[in-house]
Amino acid sequence: MRNIKLVLAYDGTEFAGWQIQPDAATIQGTLTEAIERLTQERVLPQGSGRTDAGVHALAQVATFATASSVPTENFAKALNGMLPPAVRVLQVSEVPAWFHARKSATGKTYRYRMHRGAICPPFLARYVWPFPYPLDEPAMSEAAGMVTGEHDFTSFAAADPERGRDEEVSNVRTISASEWKREGEEFVYTVHGSGFLHHMVRNMVGTFLLVGKGTVTPSAIREILEARNRSAAGATAPANGLYLVRVDY
Amino acid sequence: MRNIKLVLAYDGTEFAGWQIQPDAATIQGTLTEAIERLTQERVLPQGSGRTDAGVHALAQVATFATASSVPTENFAKALNGMLPPAVRVLQVSEVPAWFHARKSATGKTYRYRMHRGAICPPFLARYVWPFPYPLDEPAMSEAAGMVTGEHDFTSFAAADPERGRDEEVSNVRTISASEWKREGEEFVYTVHGSGFLHHMVRNMVGTFLLVGKGTVTPSAIREILEARNRSAAGATAPANGLYLVRVDY
Repeated sequence: MRNIKLVLAYDGTEFAGWQIQPDAATIQGTLTEAIERLTQERVLPQGSGRTDAGVHALAQVATFATASSVPTENFAKALNGMLPPAVRVLQVSEVPAWFHARKSATGKTYRYRMHRGAICPPFLARYVWPFPYPLDEPAMSEAAGMVTGEHDFTSFAAADPERGRDEEVSNVRTISASEWKREGEEFVYTVHGSGFLHHMVRNMVGTFLLVGKGTVTPSAIREILEARNRSAAGATAPANGLYLVRVDY
Repeated sequence: MRNIKLVLAYDGTEFAGWQIQPDAATIQGTLTEAIERLTQERVLPQGSGRTDAGVHALAQVATFATASSVPTENFAKALNGMLPPAVRVLQVSEVPAWFHARKSATGKTYRYRMHRGAICPPFLARYVWPFPYPLDEPAMSEAAGMVTGEHDFTSFAAADPERGRDEEVSNVRTISASEWKREGEEFVYTVHGSGFLHHMVRNMVGTFLLVGKGTVTPSAIREILEARNRSAAGATAPANGLYLVRVDY
């Protein structure tokens, strides 16, 4: 048996998220079928984490074990020939048996793209959150800095129906970088951390939006964190602006 | 009555082309509905020309007459609020009554994007023709130069079911610029001409592809033109790489 590591990019628009589901197109399900066609083996590739419906990935990581004789160097081209154009295998490598896409991950980077122009080009509509209304961008940058460090992120965590009772229930995570940056007509949030709770990045973006609108001050982010209550924070930002950028091991 | 000129951008992927159809989403049909919601008037905006299913536009032009009291400067924002994100009104102006998007047009620019990388990013899949196989790009550039000038383009024209018997049937057109250019991983064809026959740009791209593969020499393009026979030329390139870039008046 070989343990195979895939690095994947995908346009999440037309998928019901990463996790396999019986009656919906998902990234994991689509990948499972492509691997089965290639190797005649039914395996469930494990992702570094689930991405929600509509969320994109520039470099999601997945691992699976195979007894197939297909050479590792042939996997990328062969799988790309079977996958839809919205899912691409960027890299394939053989990794030690102990390596696991989720359990071995030590950090992740996400990016969230807002489009601030009066008219969002139709070619970007699937890939950004169009927000042409006034925002105090410097205040949002200041607010972004407030979440760095180790915090209990309960206020930014959606209830996660998939999270088992037996799992560790701490909502403490460490954010090492959190910043907004102007890139032409886009205002882009990049965050790096040890791990992220369900909807956490989108809930942080939705809360930074309240700061941009002047509803909440940048320093109030600390109080929102301390409240440990989802209702203290802002609404969940739309999925289509969010990208899983990198997974660290 | 005011005569209104719209400049439109659209992602053609999910539309059955420009022209209104009873049972399919089209750009003209979608625009007609948005105008009706805004003005309570049922008008059929006239485009500079029809684009096929899947073809995109960076600046399509359309005109329509209205008796509505909606100020011209409010049309763009109001229509964009009603149109799907895949169709955007970029500019709106009042033009003289004699101005007609199609009849007044004096030239057009199209662009065709091929993606030459081994892996086409999923975010470009709708917007380019992924072609990772070897091509003689300098030969394709040479071939592109062969179509400039005034020619009978019958060999590159699809039979056009919409073209009436009464219309002028000449297939002579003048191409003033025709070139391929490398832009990173993309190989992009840009063509400017007095007018284009049905499928003409895609048929030229499909023929340049034969040159790139070595099946046809660059100079054979002249013979293909002289044959005035569609079967002398190459296959029609896929719609999703094609963009209407500009209309001249």
